[in-house]
Amino acid sequence: MQVPVEQKVLSENQRVASGLRSALEASGTLSLNFIGSPGAGKTAFLERTLEMLPKGTRAAVLTGDLQTENDAIRLGRYGYPVRQITTVGACHLDARMVEKHLEGWDPEGLDLLFIENVGNLVCPTSYDLGEDAKVVVLSVAEGEDKPLKYPGIFRKAELMILNKIDLLPYVPFKAELAREYARRIHPEIEIIETSAITGAGYSQWLGWMAARAEKKRASTAPIMESIQAV
Amino acid sequence: MQVPVEQKVLSENQRVASGLRSALEASGTLSLNFIGSPGAGKTAFLERTLEMLPKGTRAAVLTGDLQTENDAIRLGRYGYPVRQITTVGACHLDARMVEKHLEGWDPEGLDLLFIENVGNLVCPTSYDLGEDAKVVVLSVAEGEDKPLKYPGIFRKAELMILNKIDLLPYVPFKAELAREYARRIHPEIEIIETSAITGAGYSQWLGWMAARAEKKRASTAPIMESIQAV
Repeated sequence: MQVPVEQKVLSENQRVASGLRSALEASGTLSLNFIGSPGAGKTAFLERTLEMLPKGTRAAVLTGDLQTENDAIRLGRYGYPVRQITTVGACHLDARMVEKHLEGWDPEGLDLLFIENVGNLVCPTSYDLGEDAKVVVLSVAEGEDKPLKYPGIFRKAELMILNKIDLLPYVPFKAELAREYARRIHPEIEIIETSAITGAGYSQWLGWMAARAEKKRASTAPIMESIQAV
Repeated sequence: MQVPVEQKVLSENQRVASGLRSALEASGTLSLNFIGSPGAGKTAFLERTLEMLPKGTRAAVLTGDLQTENDAIRLGRYGYPVRQITTVGACHLDARMVEKHLEGWDPEGLDLLFIENVGNLVCPTSYDLGEDAKVVVLSVAEGEDKPLKYPGIFRKAELMILNKIDLLPYVPFKAELAREYARRIHPEIEIIETSAITGAGYSQWLGWMAARAEKKRASTAPIMESIQAV
């Protein structure tokens, strides 16, 4: 649906997102926006990530869903602040929702902000949330041609998490083909294979975050070194 | 995003959908609109269905995606007419797309019309395509709380296909809980468990289609009896 109203909404979103980006820049917070199908395993991926973060890391999570507080409850068990954003029908988060749910949190106090978007490979793609990078999560229980079918998000994501690789022996998914398709859409995309069940790929993923944080201002670096040392 | 423009779009869609419904009613065609996440297994489910239809069934498929003709190629191998609808960015099919892609097909000649929607649990929910019933496809590789998180489609679907049950031994999915959540949202929803790999559930599914067709005009009934006899 291409209508002028959508353009207005996106331009207003961009204004709010730019403000968010400046604030997160000033505080040296690395902010990541996770996008994937419903059931791609975004929440379990973040649970395992929180579990593996070195003590003292100042992380927080915003988790979006149309309905329920289920994910905030799951993610809240790891000792980090978590807030649920309930969109009540909207198929994506927008910058205003993020801004509103960050209220009262001291941005100066955050090294990492994880934003788990609504499960959807289309709608969240157009909405900048002020993040440093979009991360697309694809499960091996889906089809390997998803990058070709939903090119928008694979083009915009810096990193693809190829998730649930513990299921590879039981599904007809060809990982090599998925990587090839992702790179056909976005030649520079980085790819990490993970399983929240076995823990495979998580040290590579923590290393990726540390390297990504180095692109941010120097004040963030010491915190990230502690992650890299895991 | 609740805007008056969306209301106009939906009301125009409803007008076209009503026309489609009348045409399909007149021809005694049972039309089903399949909705599920990317990777829920909709295409494989339809492939197996086409494979199992009794010879002589007059079936056709419209399959929607943002990009690629992949699904039309996969579904075209079973001897039934298949057309791809490429939405080029839109996260759902609409009635106008269906109408346009039915052009040149003789509706009188169809017993069954399968419409595979774009992979998405949100956007396709609001768009009537003139179908007799919506069918939601949920894979056991997703979370069992999807009916609570995406209640709209579970409320509107007559049938839930709980798919990929061959993976149950390898995933933490609790099927009983998924059924309970689906019925909490929609007490009358019917549920069939299937696997395109093992073929489990397909005779029950063909039986469901036959029963559903009996609600349609008498002229459709003889064809459906042949399905029921499989």
